[in-house]
Amino acid sequence: MPRRDLRPPGLSEGERRAALESVACRVRAVPDFPKPGILFRDITPVLADPRALSLALDLHLDAIDDLVSHTDKVVGIESRGFLFGMALATRLGVGFVPVRKPGKLPAQTLEERYSLEYGTDALQIHGDSLAAGERVLLVDDLLATGGTAAAAERLINRLGAEVVACLFFIELDGLGGRGRIASRRVESLLRF
Amino acid sequence: MPRRDLRPPGLSEGERRAALESVACRVRAVPDFPKPGILFRDITPVLADPRALSLALDLHLDAIDDLVSHTDKVVGIESRGFLFGMALATRLGVGFVPVRKPGKLPAQTLEERYSLEYGTDALQIHGDSLAAGERVLLVDDLLATGGTAAAAERLINRLGAEVVACLFFIELDGLGGRGRIASRRVESLLRF
Repeated sequence: MPRRDLRPPGLSEGERRAALESVACRVRAVPDFPKPGILFRDITPVLADPRALSLALDLHLDAIDDLVSHTDKVVGIESRGFLFGMALATRLGVGFVPVRKPGKLPAQTLEERYSLEYGTDALQIHGDSLAAGERVLLVDDLLATGGTAAAAERLINRLGAEVVACLFFIELDGLGGRGRIASRRVESLLRF
Repeated sequence: MPRRDLRPPGLSEGERRAALESVACRVRAVPDFPKPGILFRDITPVLADPRALSLALDLHLDAIDDLVSHTDKVVGIESRGFLFGMALATRLGVGFVPVRKPGKLPAQTLEERYSLEYGTDALQIHGDSLAAGERVLLVDDLLATGGTAAAAERLINRLGAEVVACLFFIELDGLGGRGRIASRRVESLLRF
């Protein structure tokens, strides 16, 4: 990870590795959820443990520590992206903007569709939630196929804002998620 | 509010009033959402404004400042209860437990049903998410009829944990929400 070496130090390499191990061992693998053959990575034990939660938040912040003064808003994707998204926004001292499923946001929205295994789904953002030129940190818990993150990026870009980084707690390898994201900066803490 | 007078001072009365005014004027009233005749209170402008967000978080913490050392977990109700719920958990240094719609939590769950205007819906909690005797702060953005909060309380109680307070950002008067909640302590920041 050469990019990380160029950054001002937040956590030391040793601290980062120890924190990652502590957090990773709290992620619970649940077989056959949501359907047979899928091994689901459940982050709720991380959230429930105050020490693991604090370390996970430190790791999120460490992964984007060079962007702290270059971030105007955090955008979180419904609904697990609300979790670390809000915690990061309040720690960074910036505003939080939700991207939600259709029909949930009450005011005027923009919408982007994305493909599912069978069919399509959509995400919406309030049309007045970001100003042109704002620098956005896009946060979700999971990068899998990248469809929802790419749709959220398109919504952000349609408002004239810029995604400075996409930040995921967990990345599932082999699903091509990074390839579908337009942002040049994609960070994930844990890879499975 | 005699109970508040007995607490150790967090915000002064003047600071609290000023913060409430700053936050309240950021809540957007959206007519006819989600259906004709409903005036929806949209909190997204509060979240998007870093100053209003910080004040809203201060007000949440101020409302339960006497419980800070008596809270073991924050439980947040999907999905807007995840927002201030996670921010409060990380500020309090305690774990966060989500209560979700059916089919979202991957491991073994308990379920409670509640009534809607037409029909019923349900909420679930992971069966191992709270230990017996744990003291829980239950957080949601809105107290309306109280059906979801009461269902979440029942889930928490079935795990042997205790709700020390229910904390809402907004309370809609005249819908009987407080009457449906079992906890003796119900706090809301803004009432409409």
